[in-house]
Amino acid sequence: MREHYREELEDINASLVEMANSVGSAMSTATTALLDADVALADRVIAGDEHIDAVRESIEQRCFALLARQQPVATDLRTVTAAMRIVADLERMGDLAVHVAKVARMRFPDPAVPQEVRPLFLEAGHIAEGLVSKTATVIAKLDVEAAAQLEADDDLMDRIHRQLFTELLADTWPHGMEQAIDVTLLGRYYERFADHAVSVARRVVYLVTGEMEMRGSV
Amino acid sequence: MREHYREELEDINASLVEMANSVGSAMSTATTALLDADVALADRVIAGDEHIDAVRESIEQRCFALLARQQPVATDLRTVTAAMRIVADLERMGDLAVHVAKVARMRFPDPAVPQEVRPLFLEAGHIAEGLVSKTATVIAKLDVEAAAQLEADDDLMDRIHRQLFTELLADTWPHGMEQAIDVTLLGRYYERFADHAVSVARRVVYLVTGEMEMRGSV
Repeated sequence: MREHYREELEDINASLVEMANSVGSAMSTATTALLDADVALADRVIAGDEHIDAVRESIEQRCFALLARQQPVATDLRTVTAAMRIVADLERMGDLAVHVAKVARMRFPDPAVPQEVRPLFLEAGHIAEGLVSKTATVIAKLDVEAAAQLEADDDLMDRIHRQLFTELLADTWPHGMEQAIDVTLLGRYYERFADHAVSVARRVVYLVTGEMEMRGSV
Repeated sequence: MREHYREELEDINASLVEMANSVGSAMSTATTALLDADVALADRVIAGDEHIDAVRESIEQRCFALLARQQPVATDLRTVTAAMRIVADLERMGDLAVHVAKVARMRFPDPAVPQEVRPLFLEAGHIAEGLVSKTATVIAKLDVEAAAQLEADDDLMDRIHRQLFTELLADTWPHGMEQAIDVTLLGRYYERFADHAVSVARRVVYLVTGEMEMRGSV
């Protein structure tokens, strides 16, 4: 019974890592769809969200079943409740990738992102990729060091977000309102994506730190 | 022991209702701050978020303690895990009220919302108020009927959101890019506020329906 219990906890953790990787792929693909005006890639991201939602559902049910059957306490209980929160952040990150893909789809065959801000979105995509890959590492290895790096990446994303506004507000912005709305919302999607990654990392840190404190107090 | 346990569950539910009401007040006040360019009101919303975060923290801790000490199963376990999710939605709704207040603050003494779209934000504010008040009722009375009404309100909010874009994209939009960015983001904040209210209602419906199904299957 006890053996099975540990296996279940590890299985939930492995699924969280897998979900983080799926979400990362979704955002990378969405960024390419956006920058290349590639509607097939955009459709792949939109269709793929069903799988991410299904993984969420499966993890939630396993967490619930584990609570009901095994009634964990202390660190194990914290691990399960943290997983239930992390899964919500990851699902939302998947939704944000879909939002990016939908903008690409909506403007096709035109590119949604004007040339002037293309390098900023390219960078936002890279930062998002790095963030989610570090998030997966943080979950997989309960790595508090990697979690700290995520905060630095998040600051970079905020800087890009501000630069987008600078571009939009420049007298030289040669495009219309539609592009400005797209760029404003896209900037927000990437920024929120980063926020959720940081939120996941903070939950893991809290979990590990809490555990350390408990060990220290024993 | 059992008596105390029921009291704890009811106490958590009462705190969720109180938190929903606080979040509703925050959004109402933020809307007034926005429309009246009232920086004192905006500051009140921004300062008040600390209280909402503290209520969240307190509810989360009580949920965790209840799981650890009482090890609930079946409906009670579902109630506690639902509360942990609802509290996250409500906290985010509080954050969105702060975002609205911050836009009002940033543009002060100018109004952030141009006259052309003022009626739309007034209506968005009313819908948000109605949504959160119904959300509180849904939580307090586990009222599935009220939850259905929330979906209708959410549709109204989506309609307003689309109308905002129509205004921005009209050839007659007489304002600059800064106002357009503000309006785009503000529209998004209200829309997300409504989404989270619907998400809370759906969790309660799921809880009640699950319960009904269980009763039906006995």
